[in-house]
Amino acid sequence: MQNFEFFNPVNVVFGRDQIQKLNKLVPADTKIMLAYGGGSIFNNGVYDQVIAALPGFNLIEFGGIEPNPKYETLMKAVDIVKKDKIGFILAVGGGSVLDGVKFIAAAALWEEGDPWNFLTNRRLTVAKAVPLGTVLTLPATGSEMNGGSVVTRVSTQEKLAFMSNAVLPRFSILDPTVVFSLPEKQVANGIVDAFVHVIEQYLTYPVNSPIQDRFAESILITLVEEGPKVLANRNDYDAAANFMWAATMALNGLIGVGVPQDWATHMIGHELTAFHNIDHARTLAIVLPGIMQIKRDNKREKLLQYGERVWGINSGTADARIEATIRKTVECFESFGIPTKLSAYGIGADFIQVVCKRFTDRGFKGIGERGDLTVEQIAEVLTLQL
Amino acid sequence: MQNFEFFNPVNVVFGRDQIQKLNKLVPADTKIMLAYGGGSIFNNGVYDQVIAALPGFNLIEFGGIEPNPKYETLMKAVDIVKKDKIGFILAVGGGSVLDGVKFIAAAALWEEGDPWNFLTNRRLTVAKAVPLGTVLTLPATGSEMNGGSVVTRVSTQEKLAFMSNAVLPRFSILDPTVVFSLPEKQVANGIVDAFVHVIEQYLTYPVNSPIQDRFAESILITLVEEGPKVLANRNDYDAAANFMWAATMALNGLIGVGVPQDWATHMIGHELTAFHNIDHARTLAIVLPGIMQIKRDNKREKLLQYGERVWGINSGTADARIEATIRKTVECFESFGIPTKLSAYGIGADFIQVVCKRFTDRGFKGIGERGDLTVEQIAEVLTLQL
Repeated sequence: MQNFEFFNPVNVVFGRDQIQKLNKLVPADTKIMLAYGGGSIFNNGVYDQVIAALPGFNLIEFGGIEPNPKYETLMKAVDIVKKDKIGFILAVGGGSVLDGVKFIAAAALWEEGDPWNFLTNRRLTVAKAVPLGTVLTLPATGSEMNGGSVVTRVSTQEKLAFMSNAVLPRFSILDPTVVFSLPEKQVANGIVDAFVHVIEQYLTYPVNSPIQDRFAESILITLVEEGPKVLANRNDYDAAANFMWAATMALNGLIGVGVPQDWATHMIGHELTAFHNIDHARTLAIVLPGIMQIKRDNKREKLLQYGERVWGINSGTADARIEATIRKTVECFESFGIPTKLSAYGIGADFIQVVCKRFTDRGFKGIGERGDLTVEQIAEVLTLQL
Repeated sequence: MQNFEFFNPVNVVFGRDQIQKLNKLVPADTKIMLAYGGGSIFNNGVYDQVIAALPGFNLIEFGGIEPNPKYETLMKAVDIVKKDKIGFILAVGGGSVLDGVKFIAAAALWEEGDPWNFLTNRRLTVAKAVPLGTVLTLPATGSEMNGGSVVTRVSTQEKLAFMSNAVLPRFSILDPTVVFSLPEKQVANGIVDAFVHVIEQYLTYPVNSPIQDRFAESILITLVEEGPKVLANRNDYDAAANFMWAATMALNGLIGVGVPQDWATHMIGHELTAFHNIDHARTLAIVLPGIMQIKRDNKREKLLQYGERVWGINSGTADARIEATIRKTVECFESFGIPTKLSAYGIGADFIQVVCKRFTDRGFKGIGERGDLTVEQIAEVLTLQL
């Protein structure tokens, strides 16, 4: 096991009828920005519950944060936070709203020029932010219990991430009943998103970390078991709750302590979203099988362990088991209605060099857990997934 | 899954050579009480590392906190904290030192009479405490990442617990190399202590909580696998690290969210320590097999699941599998050199009524996950373990 630090002070409030606790969680003595996305919270009752829980609070609403939240939109909220001296931001929505609010919270107190810089320049640190809390409406990204945020800039077709303890939510309310009204596509995306978050922290090389490995496998197995139940019956509270908790645990830092991490699938996937606006989870479902193939030697021991413990694949040659393991992963994603080939999204071979050029232009030095995935291999990954 | 709240802001700093980070973790602008137990930190080099890491800090030492930390000893430290206006307490030791420091930190700011009251009266809440941090020297109790504390009062032969977020450590440094110099008995106690902590939160009744169940099983399997490695070779860093992280994860609240909890084994075990000064972990090893037998119908489904997933017991009648599961648990404890019968500790049948009388005198209302373990059943449990 490698040395690590783990710090996650997010107060998780989980279960039915928990939104009503907002009045004890949100500070009463400051202006609150209530931030949300499109109209879903008006249709599923969450907006009404939030408003009912905060009588007498000084709320300023900011709606319209879009999927893959856009810098251009978020900067409008930053102006309001500064102008109106907002003291707390309440994000009500899925990962995009939460990520957007983290950017708003950090950007509002950023004093070194354009806030976009802390996304493009990894040496810059976000040290302070307006305090924030969240009401999650879509299990998927894990943003409710971490300090990460991904923002897209339309003008440059870029999708970039930043991490900071300053944007860790003070609290997150997780009410599984929000799942009841989710469309099938969002549930499927959420399951695959959480699944690949685990894989990025798990499917690397062994460092003798049995707790982290087994916790990761626990989440994967739970997603494989509970995901289809949620898709089959959106009103199954237990399945919704288990899916929601799995998605949070998938990316709150715990399973990633003391182990190598990959994240190549995410980095390549972000380009598919940046250029073609493909849903984040779907980009992961496209890229991951290719990464598994191209890096099968690098990841050999963990691929075999993953195949055995998650999919029960324990006979045949090592190569045959790895093939079966990759096939099982692909079948799982496809069974949720998520295609894993670029052609299914109308993307052809021309695109591959566009992606590769972008990585090269950024002064690419290799990605993945060993930093040895080359631009040529990125092209191979995408070619496999045409 | 039941509704829950989870809040654990402890900053865990894990790995080799981490004690030197103390100067960034401990506040420099206040008087620090450096609290420890007997002499082990002088022999294993930890004391020297702590002192070297804190040059120029205003340290006031308080040593001599004993195993099963005693109210009478701790109140002397409380006087010093008040008199010298201590602003931070650094606990360097095992669970007893950490628990003792939590009591000191809470008692020093307690304004409603004798601090012993917040142990005897569960309706009293500890709302504030002197901030504290820890350097753990013995993996076992999980105290390094929770807000619990157990204190013994010699004059009344009582051992009681309190819980408060106010005594959550600001940070805990976990350096697995402290295991290298531990005597075999302390390692064995630590493994069993952590094991039973998991069991108390897991071996109850099903509530459809696959993440919590699998995380619990992950810790149990890891303790069963890594424990013997630590006992066989104290200098196996990886085994020590895995044992240490398992013990912390066993009682930091995570596996217990949203599920019923038992703790009857602990409550009965505390009496064995209070009256006969048996090591805490050994009391658990004595009581647990009896609880499993007496409550085998209550715990039927989880006993079968535990037997199958932790011990691989998956054939035979349900009753035979439960018998085999209990036997495996006992054999495991005994294999670590920990006897599970009262006779091995020189305790006879006379003692049983002493324990039962104490529970009755306290206005006993039933314990365990269903609150239905009676005083008569406590007598049966102990009779089975004579």
